[in-house]
Amino acid sequence: MATKNLAAWACHLNSRTLPSTVKHAAVRSLYNYLGCAIGGSQHPAVEKAYTTFEPFFGPASSTIYGHGGTKRTDAQHASLLNGIASHVHDYDDTHLATIIHPTGPVASALLAYAEYRGGVSGEDLLCALVAGIEASCKVGLAVWPSHYDIGWHITSSTGSIGAAVGVGKLLKLDEEQMAHAIGLAAVQVIGLREMFGSDTKSFHPGRAAQSGLMAALMAEKGYTSSLQALEAKRGWANVVAGGGTPKLDHYIAELGEKWEIEANAFKPFPCGIVCHPAIDGCIQLHHEMQQKGLALDDIQEVEVRVHPLVIELTSKRKPKDGLEDSSVMSIRDRVGATSNEDVRADEAHLQIYFADGQTLAKHVKHAVGSLEKPMTDGQLMEKFLDQTTLVLGKAKAVAASDIAWAVADRSDVAAMLRDL
Amino acid sequence: MATKNLAAWACHLNSRTLPSTVKHAAVRSLYNYLGCAIGGSQHPAVEKAYTTFEPFFGPASSTIYGHGGTKRTDAQHASLLNGIASHVHDYDDTHLATIIHPTGPVASALLAYAEYRGGVSGEDLLCALVAGIEASCKVGLAVWPSHYDIGWHITSSTGSIGAAVGVGKLLKLDEEQMAHAIGLAAVQVIGLREMFGSDTKSFHPGRAAQSGLMAALMAEKGYTSSLQALEAKRGWANVVAGGGTPKLDHYIAELGEKWEIEANAFKPFPCGIVCHPAIDGCIQLHHEMQQKGLALDDIQEVEVRVHPLVIELTSKRKPKDGLEDSSVMSIRDRVGATSNEDVRADEAHLQIYFADGQTLAKHVKHAVGSLEKPMTDGQLMEKFLDQTTLVLGKAKAVAASDIAWAVADRSDVAAMLRDL
Repeated sequence: MATKNLAAWACHLNSRTLPSTVKHAAVRSLYNYLGCAIGGSQHPAVEKAYTTFEPFFGPASSTIYGHGGTKRTDAQHASLLNGIASHVHDYDDTHLATIIHPTGPVASALLAYAEYRGGVSGEDLLCALVAGIEASCKVGLAVWPSHYDIGWHITSSTGSIGAAVGVGKLLKLDEEQMAHAIGLAAVQVIGLREMFGSDTKSFHPGRAAQSGLMAALMAEKGYTSSLQALEAKRGWANVVAGGGTPKLDHYIAELGEKWEIEANAFKPFPCGIVCHPAIDGCIQLHHEMQQKGLALDDIQEVEVRVHPLVIELTSKRKPKDGLEDSSVMSIRDRVGATSNEDVRADEAHLQIYFADGQTLAKHVKHAVGSLEKPMTDGQLMEKFLDQTTLVLGKAKAVAASDIAWAVADRSDVAAMLRDL
Repeated sequence: MATKNLAAWACHLNSRTLPSTVKHAAVRSLYNYLGCAIGGSQHPAVEKAYTTFEPFFGPASSTIYGHGGTKRTDAQHASLLNGIASHVHDYDDTHLATIIHPTGPVASALLAYAEYRGGVSGEDLLCALVAGIEASCKVGLAVWPSHYDIGWHITSSTGSIGAAVGVGKLLKLDEEQMAHAIGLAAVQVIGLREMFGSDTKSFHPGRAAQSGLMAALMAEKGYTSSLQALEAKRGWANVVAGGGTPKLDHYIAELGEKWEIEANAFKPFPCGIVCHPAIDGCIQLHHEMQQKGLALDDIQEVEVRVHPLVIELTSKRKPKDGLEDSSVMSIRDRVGATSNEDVRADEAHLQIYFADGQTLAKHVKHAVGSLEKPMTDGQLMEKFLDQTTLVLGKAKAVAASDIAWAVADRSDVAAMLRDL
């Protein structure tokens, strides 16, 4: 019954009875998404995808973000391209329990749809975003961790389902149509971890957005799939669980009681989240050094003790590109990183030894951006402006930020999106 | 090295050195494909998909078959819609060792591309079709049977890779670009067996065609994936093998030595291939009855002994739709089917008991359409005309058949496709 139960829950989700904390979490997720989609819009991966798909563009309805409202395409391609842009800097949100980046696939589909069909209020948009994010995260939890361990990029492999549920909500699909939409999304399993480090990583959430959007639109026209798509013997969960035992019923039963969007965290730094505690600590120590009049050249050695995954993900001492700054290269040779299992993923221990014998130490218990120390709305805004100013310039970035915060108040969100 | 080896083999495949048996198998596969794509074009699943995607159509370049050349759309949507139509009657070809229906995804992509970019000769088209079909079948063999057993629809889960290789061949991608195209296709794993019996089953090969087409076009523009997409620890084969041990190197090494397209069979009847021996036998017995002046009403009982999978797939004695003919319903109640493991999948034993005490028996050792008793070119033509006459009328069906047989001789196939 997992498929039917998810469909029924999503169909009956009501924006007027959404808890205010959930609604605020949705506003923050959408705001952060728009900053990332604009911020990533000039990346070569997005440009290559644009050049490939441009000859196939249909009637222009939906904005490709990051061009000040000058680039539009059909909703399918807008969802794809904005989805790629939102993920390409690894700067998007993280549902920490599954490391799903949930907003990219869902919001890319919803916003492209909102401009295409029109008549979507801010309240409806947020409600659909919540439905889609809950769907992605609950089915993700049901197959976690074996699904990720075997090699699926869980953001996109669950993202098409979330996008279908979200768009299905805006389409006001009935429960049976919604179940068919879930099925149509579930047969398009997108994203392998092998692609991390290549352009294809960010293609994953883009394609998931597009697949979910079209799954909902096909279901609207009566296209049938299965009413047991998720839980059937040869359905989604059993096929993609990677040898684990899916716990669909358990997590689907939690819908509306435990809100996954409230456990959605935002990255203060554009890199894998386990690196954040060390970065957070280094920034704090840098401020302390400035107060004490200590400079980079005074550093003899830096000791960093981190979670083992940090070493696994970042142990390239001489990366080929990106970090050619000579002061970065010089400090790199004075940093030693060790790890042990006692250090939590959001924790880091740092110690700086200076040439004159001074030392500075920092224990980051919970990195900024973790659930224990979430980014404030102000920090999110700073992040948004940082990203978007590089693309739009300061004035337009501030205007975009105002637009992105105000989405809940709009009676039709389409007009506001056309300026982004 | 499987990904690089597949890419290198495909890039160097030369139409002038293709064995003539391989070339003839390609002509037959393409011919049968076109009959199925035209024959399925009026099915409600195709119409629902058309209605859904029509608002997104880009510049019309490529024919949607079955409308006498009156319907065109962009190559993406043509590959999708023709791919759906080619599979919707379960009448397409079968690579018996994997039960992949290989031509649908590959040919749908190639033909849509050929009209889009132009300049594709019949020779080049057949060579690309061979490359794509060999790719699909070899990677399918590498994960067979565990991949299918766990629940993947192997036609589409391998089809996007075959379509990418085929289109990549037409694009003259270099080896590295071809490997990236394979990777981009490999991250889009499409099709669950749970959907058998619904519209979504035929969506699978259509979407695989579209995904493979775009994977190759993205690689042409420099989009990167992984050069170890198939064989990496968290690459395609290990992720989708369903617990089995992939044998990629073994099967990729066979490329060009053992041609899978020569083991591609064609269905004489529009249903699952294991049912064919019993149908074949019944038709033969029906002819014998006519010679002896025996009618349906004279039958007391029919005994059928078949492979166990026939019972598993067809044991619905009272299907909800499709078979409402009263004479069919009356004979149905007089048929008893049993199975045992000794009966091969292409074999059937039949016995008819008549009211007057006569009996007729038939042992079908190899059903028509099996590798041991392949459909002749004449039988393929009869099948093509049967399917297409229902859609196009007799005269246009005959013209379409002439066009479809003559593809190898064309210097540019685009013009001929515009009439189908």
